[in-house]
Amino acid sequence: MPDISIQNPPLELIDVAKVIEQELDAQLGQLQLPEHLADATSYAVVNGGKRVRPALTLLCCEAVGGSKKEALAAAIAVEFIHCFSLVHDDLPAIDDDDLRRGKPTLHIHAGEAMALLAGDLLLPLAFSQLTSANYPPQQQVRLTELLAIATRDMVVGQVYDTLGGLPEELEKQASIEEIHRNKTGALIRCACQMGAICGGASSEAYEAIDTFGEATGLMFQIVDDLIDLHGSEDHVGKATGKDAHAGKATYPGTIGVEKSKRVVQELHDKAESALSGLGATAETLCSFNVWLAHRTR
Amino acid sequence: MPDISIQNPPLELIDVAKVIEQELDAQLGQLQLPEHLADATSYAVVNGGKRVRPALTLLCCEAVGGSKKEALAAAIAVEFIHCFSLVHDDLPAIDDDDLRRGKPTLHIHAGEAMALLAGDLLLPLAFSQLTSANYPPQQQVRLTELLAIATRDMVVGQVYDTLGGLPEELEKQASIEEIHRNKTGALIRCACQMGAICGGASSEAYEAIDTFGEATGLMFQIVDDLIDLHGSEDHVGKATGKDAHAGKATYPGTIGVEKSKRVVQELHDKAESALSGLGATAETLCSFNVWLAHRTR
Repeated sequence: MPDISIQNPPLELIDVAKVIEQELDAQLGQLQLPEHLADATSYAVVNGGKRVRPALTLLCCEAVGGSKKEALAAAIAVEFIHCFSLVHDDLPAIDDDDLRRGKPTLHIHAGEAMALLAGDLLLPLAFSQLTSANYPPQQQVRLTELLAIATRDMVVGQVYDTLGGLPEELEKQASIEEIHRNKTGALIRCACQMGAICGGASSEAYEAIDTFGEATGLMFQIVDDLIDLHGSEDHVGKATGKDAHAGKATYPGTIGVEKSKRVVQELHDKAESALSGLGATAETLCSFNVWLAHRTR
Repeated sequence: MPDISIQNPPLELIDVAKVIEQELDAQLGQLQLPEHLADATSYAVVNGGKRVRPALTLLCCEAVGGSKKEALAAAIAVEFIHCFSLVHDDLPAIDDDDLRRGKPTLHIHAGEAMALLAGDLLLPLAFSQLTSANYPPQQQVRLTELLAIATRDMVVGQVYDTLGGLPEELEKQASIEEIHRNKTGALIRCACQMGAICGGASSEAYEAIDTFGEATGLMFQIVDDLIDLHGSEDHVGKATGKDAHAGKATYPGTIGVEKSKRVVQELHDKAESALSGLGATAETLCSFNVWLAHRTR
């Protein structure tokens, strides 16, 4: 992994994040929720996040020849699931985090009961995003299926990470890979798969995106581990070094920093080469992948 | 409401509950989950519950001319959502209950982190039940849509119940009705709607079942309030009188016991008359409704 650091994503990717941010806000605004619940949900969702997962959904849709607009509802659904997981993971019973993206976490801001329930709310809202969108029924069923499975796997990953329970015969690196693949990789891979489905991918294009998503999902968490190890709190917007201190399994903690960087490079390359058959429509996705490998936050 | 108490449902309804219990167990057994998570999920789900919601799904399917088997996956999905809500509602941050159906609640049994995560897991498992069943795509989309909306409403009801936030202009009875309709009524109504859809209901039959479900859902919670007030802890299997002591809004606390019993009778009658056009296929559903109005646990 060359030591290139790229703090901000390219401009056009910032534009994608803005579109997503606006749509998240618009979708939440349409719901008729009690005011305090609406506030808590907005606090959890419209918070200046990087929007990596929904951006991947839009860009994977574009990569297989669709227009980003077609994938917007699926992208919002994925981001709702991601935001649900952040809120619940931050709770005192799990990671007990007070800070997220430089702001108090939701349970600090609005109390534990509200954080628990606002998190719970985001799950059905995600599935409602899919059913209320204009996708053909068979496509909707596939999207729902993928999102449900990825959410299940994400929860399983969180259980492994928080409470252990991996098969004892797994070696250290295989264990950490199993945690990361579930906890972070599953939803990122799903974000990519959903984008491909929304874009009407051929089975070859779907396989390409799926390979891309699997590699990128694992890579994303290893880069996160590296940032957690080296970033400053100001920069990352949450407590850093915490995972390592909490005795949580991390890639650099398991195989070392240099080997972790090599794995990032390998996964980046694997993801990139998966896109080679898709041609010019995958260019933005490809440059996003470069940023994901080199990001510093 | 005549003071008839019926402790146990009729024999054939016990059979329905057994079928559901077996299917819940079978569905959970098929999942490849880490052992402690599988144990926690089983503990939350396969627990001798009354299975009112999935029984309604099966019986509403039968009432519109379908066979109970067709509605089994939808019934399991509804019960997963119900079990998720029980686990999260029992958590210290919400109701802080130590006892459920005569056993320690999941967070007492397996810790708070596991209870939170096992609850989270049940939500995607519910939606996976629908997509992995053999329903035609359009039916699946409707089922997913209804379940997502009902889950949302249930969470909103829990927010009202725990954290307030109802419109201030609502009178007391309207407020408690709004809480009950969301917190308990929405999922019961959804259970009925889903059964009707699985049974291929005509639009008239669907409307009949929907009216039935709406009345039964509200009635169910009022009967629960009455049982909570008068039952003994041994009998109910959880702490009784707790809702009233916690200052939570209840029907008898708001409009008195006698008037609450009258409302139960009215809702029972409304539900029963909604079924009148469905004929002999609705007979079991009808007798279930009688038990729901007169049950003592």
